Amino acid sequence: MYPESLEKLISCFRRLPGVGERTAERYALMICDEDEEDVAEFAQALIDVRQKLTYCKVCGNLTEGDTCNICADAGRDHRQIFVVQSPKDVIAMEKTGEYHGVYHVLNGLISSTKGILPEDLNIAELVERAKDADEIILATSATMDGETTAMYLSRLLQSKCPDVLVTRIAHGLPSGGMLDYADEITLTHALVDRRKL
Amino acid sequence: MYPESLEKLISCFRRLPGVGERTAERYALMICDEDEEDVAEFAQALIDVRQKLTYCKVCGNLTEGDTCNICADAGRDHRQIFVVQSPKDVIAMEKTGEYHGVYHVLNGLISSTKGILPEDLNIAELVERAKDADEIILATSATMDGETTAMYLSRLLQSKCPDVLVTRIAHGLPSGGMLDYADEITLTHALVDRRKL
Repeated sequence: MYPESLEKLISCFRRLPGVGERTAERYALMICDEDEEDVAEFAQALIDVRQKLTYCKVCGNLTEGDTCNICADAGRDHRQIFVVQSPKDVIAMEKTGEYHGVYHVLNGLISSTKGILPEDLNIAELVERAKDADEIILATSATMDGETTAMYLSRLLQSKCPDVLVTRIAHGLPSGGMLDYADEITLTHALVDRRKL
Repeated sequence: MYPESLEKLISCFRRLPGVGERTAERYALMICDEDEEDVAEFAQALIDVRQKLTYCKVCGNLTEGDTCNICADAGRDHRQIFVVQSPKDVIAMEKTGEYHGVYHVLNGLISSTKGILPEDLNIAELVERAKDADEIILATSATMDGETTAMYLSRLLQSKCPDVLVTRIAHGLPSGGMLDYADEITLTHALVDRRKL
C-alpha cells in the first residue's frame, strides 16, 4: 500500500519488541517528517551500536572496550557478585546507588518453554569467578524462568565452590504495594521471609 | 549509565512518537542482539525513506515519484476528492476497498493550540483542484482540530468554488460500539444524523 521504501522501514520497525503494524507505521511516518540530518544520525547510531558494543570479558555486560566500567573500577568490591539476566538489570540496580560490588550478566535465563539450556548462558564464567568471591547474589526475576535459573545456579555453585556464600534477593510486597492487590505467591513469600523488627 | 553508543541510540529511539525511556532501552538492547546485516538494512531503510520519499505534486500524499500511484491511476474518479489529514488515512481508506475517487492529503490540521494556520497546510492546492471536481469529501478526524479544519475548508470551498458539492463523512456509533459506552457527542451525532430505513 505504501511506497516501497516506506514499507521496508515499517517492516524494520516491526522487528522491535512489542511493535505492531500501527505503531511501526507511526514511527516510519515520523521519520518522513524528520530533518535529513537527524535521520542520518539515527542510522549511524544503529550501525555504531552494533559495531562498537561487545560483551565485557569479565561479567558479560555490554561495553565498548574489553571490560566494562564497573569491572574496571578498582573502588568496587570484586568479591561480591550480583547475578542478573540482562544489561538492563545492571542499570536498574546502579540507579539505586546502594550496591558497591560487581555484576555478572547471564544474557538470558534457563527456559524449558524457549528451549534455553544452561550452556547457552554466561554460566561457566560465573563458576570461574565464584572461586575468588565471598558472595554470589542471585538476582534473576521472580518469574518461573528466573526461579529455575536461580535454583540451578545455587546448586551448581554450592557443589563447585562450597566456600562461597550464595544468596537470593528478597521476595515480598513491593514498595507501595497493597496487601489486597498482592497475589498469593507474593503474600506467601512475604509471610515466610518476615523479619524481626 | 550505558556505554556511549548505546545511550546515543536510546536517545534516537526516544524521538519516536510515544516512546519513553524504558521502551527506547528495550529497542536499543534488541539492536545489540540483532545480526549486523539486519542492522545495516535498518539503517539503510531509514536513509532511503528520507531520501526517496517526497510529497505527491497533485495530492500531497507520500510517493517515490512525482505523483502517487492513486493520482496516476486513470481508472479512478478524479472528480471526487477525499480530504484527509495524513498519508495514514489514505491507507486506512484504501483498505476498505470502497472508495474509487482520489485523495488530498493536508499533512496536518488547523490547530490553535499547536499554532498551525491554514497557510501551513496543503490547502491552496485543494482549492485549485476543487475547480475541476464534482465532490469534495471532508474526512478529517472527529476531533476539535479535525472539526475546525473541516469547517474552515467547507466555508473556503463554498466561497471559492460554489459549484462543487462539499460533504463531510458521517459521525455516529462505530461498528461494534455499544450505546451505553458511547460519549454524549457521539450519541448526539447518531441521533441528529439518523436515517430512514
